Amino acid sequence: MATEHSGKHSGPEHALERLVFFSDAVFAIAITLLVIEIHVPRLPPGSTNQDYFVALAHLIPSFFGFFVSFWVIGAFWTVHHRAFSLAAHYRDSLLTPNLAVLCGIVFIPFATAFMAANTGMLVPQALYDLTLIVCGLLHLRLNRMVTSPPVVSEQADPLTIALTRVRGWSVTLGAACALAIGFVDSHYSQVALITIPLWRILLQRRTRRRFPAA
Amino acid sequence: MATEHSGKHSGPEHALERLVFFSDAVFAIAITLLVIEIHVPRLPPGSTNQDYFVALAHLIPSFFGFFVSFWVIGAFWTVHHRAFSLAAHYRDSLLTPNLAVLCGIVFIPFATAFMAANTGMLVPQALYDLTLIVCGLLHLRLNRMVTSPPVVSEQADPLTIALTRVRGWSVTLGAACALAIGFVDSHYSQVALITIPLWRILLQRRTRRRFPAA
Amino acid sequence: MATEHSGKHSGPEHALERLVFFSDAVFAIAITLLVIEIHVPRLPPGSTNQDYFVALAHLIPSFFGFFVSFWVIGAFWTVHHRAFSLAAHYRDSLLTPNLAVLCGIVFIPFATAFMAANTGMLVPQALYDLTLIVCGLLHLRLNRMVTSPPVVSEQADPLTIALTRVRGWSVTLGAACALAIGFVDSHYSQVALITIPLWRILLQRRTRRRFPAA
Amino acid sequence: MATEHSGKHSGPEHALERLVFFSDAVFAIAITLLVIEIHVPRLPPGSTNQDYFVALAHLIPSFFGFFVSFWVIGAFWTVHHRAFSLAAHYRDSLLTPNLAVLCGIVFIPFATAFMAANTGMLVPQALYDLTLIVCGLLHLRLNRMVTSPPVVSEQADPLTIALTRVRGWSVTLGAACALAIGFVDSHYSQVALITIPLWRILLQRRTRRRFPAA
Repeated sequence: MATEHSGKHSGPEHALERLVFFSDAVFAIAITLLVIEIHVPRLPPGSTNQDYFVALAHLIPSFFGFFVSFWVIGAFWTVHHRAFSLAAHYRDSLLTPNLAVLCGIVFIPFATAFMAANTGMLVPQALYDLTLIVCGLLHLRLNRMVTSPPVVSEQADPLTIALTRVRGWSVTLGAACALAIGFVDSHYSQVALITIPLWRILLQRRTRRRFPAA
Repeated sequence: MATEHSGKHSGPEHALERLVFFSDAVFAIAITLLVIEIHVPRLPPGSTNQDYFVALAHLIPSFFGFFVSFWVIGAFWTVHHRAFSLAAHYRDSLLTPNLAVLCGIVFIPFATAFMAANTGMLVPQALYDLTLIVCGLLHLRLNRMVTSPPVVSEQADPLTIALTRVRGWSVTLGAACALAIGFVDSHYSQVALITIPLWRILLQRRTRRRFPAA
Repeated sequence: MATEHSGKHSGPEHALERLVFFSDAVFAIAITLLVIEIHVPRLPPGSTNQDYFVALAHLIPSFFGFFVSFWVIGAFWTVHHRAFSLAAHYRDSLLTPNLAVLCGIVFIPFATAFMAANTGMLVPQALYDLTLIVCGLLHLRLNRMVTSPPVVSEQADPLTIALTRVRGWSVTLGAACALAIGFVDSHYSQVALITIPLWRILLQRRTRRRFPAA
Repeated sequence: MATEHSGKHSGPEHALERLVFFSDAVFAIAITLLVIEIHVPRLPPGSTNQDYFVALAHLIPSFFGFFVSFWVIGAFWTVHHRAFSLAAHYRDSLLTPNLAVLCGIVFIPFATAFMAANTGMLVPQALYDLTLIVCGLLHLRLNRMVTSPPVVSEQADPLTIALTRVRGWSVTLGAACALAIGFVDSHYSQVALITIPLWRILLQRRTRRRFPAA
């Protein structure tokens, strides 16, 4: 089923742009909805400054969850952004894997709020980590399609392709670490997500070594 | 009333792009709002892992509703995406039918939440199925306009046009099945929505047979 | 302060596109948020079909408010879409009047929910009508700027400009009618918004008569 | 790590556009979410017009917070819009500072709602002002990157660059004033945000004087 045909607004390039655009909007909404789940404290009149600090202190798990999930969704968007910047040819077969990634991303605000409302508990923490792992795996599948023929641009550099693919692994591995640590002590599980950039640096260094010319 | 006139940013192409863009944003927000309607359980301190599993089990209808509606809105977006990828000429007359489709899409998160909050009940289930049927019928009308002169691109392939039009029927027929089954047993109504891809395959096979050259 | 300068992504055209894009996103979110304000009824187990119909009947003001506001925001978007399709030159001075319009649009979901939660009461109804009137007047100011030099495209047809400007009046006049009727009987106020398309047809017919060549 | 390579949809320009697009969507959602935080009053049947006016009067802090934050986010968007209208070359290093700005912007609806729910209290007011200061400082860092080589367009005018950079300071200085005044009397803190346009005019006049040729 070849749906490619010429014409200014009906060609494959416009279809690719619209796919990217729709995905961007979903990422943007998911990343902004995170803040809605933080309940605004309304204190009775006559509360002291200390009461307000206590109210804010109770929200620390929510703030932390918001902050971590913001950067996790941001990292997923970055991976999506990089992979599609290497694509040049639209294919209908991209739609379903892309929707699957977005379905995972859209679920992150719920998983974040559930975790933040029940800090330090195993089940909410494990659900959060599992959500990130599933998002990561779905992203890996999409990235492989986007950076392979027939979708990938002919001008795309093999090293850039390899670095982009490897990047998708970093969130997945960081979330897997967080899940493993969660079974030992669920309070430290979320901290393990900080390993995401470490995994990226490690994996990218390994990838570069295999490209001697670069 | 011919509003087509030349000029880089004031021409019909830009107007078509903006229409598509606005629609994409509405689809993206509707698909993401689905997750807001899932209430985050907040358990008292000292709850066991089993309590958390029970709390999540109570949310299964919400998760299922979220998941089904995500893919239904995704299917509607795909139909919209395909139809407009065949369009090349903007007409003012597209605005009202397109807004009508979006009005239906925007209502889906409410219908989903109402159904999920009252699982297995006839009225919420029927309202959900009716919403999808109305969305499907409004989409069929829009698709016909978009894939007909004067809007359709001159380079658009007749088989692609026929396949795109037929695609709009699949959600409508799947939702009609769900509605019919709902009157017998409302618990199985939503399962009938899984027939949507079956209808699409069936209808597309039938369409292809009528295009011997393709 | 001339901020126009050449360059592919830094020129006035891209700045105009981004302004339109940002506005589209705000319109899209405001139009979709309308549905969030409808509270999802959750009935106790054992409720009959009739109980569900009663629950839905109680939501009729909310449904009606959602539907009317969807089309009102849709009408405002259409006016914005048409006006900017005639624009070709970006000016910094567009930013503030455009933000003022968006500020009004973003307030519509609140005014709608307040009116729907207190059906038939004068104050919520008058606040709603006033919001639409203010949005309409702000739109008229923006439209005049967008369809005048130096912003308007040189190729824009004078009749199209006149028709676009007149269109902005229809929502304002319809809302003014609704406000006036509201002081007599607030139950019929919202019905008066149906006069919006009548005003448009009337005003456009009058405009056309003044352009003998068209 | 040079990720620039030619190709229509895979080049640096498209990547820059997508970055701007994603940011626009986040700004648009944050600015629209402000209205969600205003609780819709639902009065018992038989309430008089005066009861409604009292209910609205209780919302004045929320309306004021909505209005101020709308224009503050609008001001930040304007700064972002102007800075990126001078950019021409995409760099991967833009992603993190841009996400940092967006993280601050997304937090504004929470800070606004917290301040409006607890009017005249020091801690919520200080948190709000601090949020704006952090957003302003993050924006300054981003603006400097965007308006410097290698990102900035070669055709960008030095005066325009200087005026754009200075603009970022106005929100930061206005919020710093508000914070300082808040420690004296927290009721007048928000009023000090009105100095934002004054700071802009002052800073821009000073900048212009240093460019004798302009």
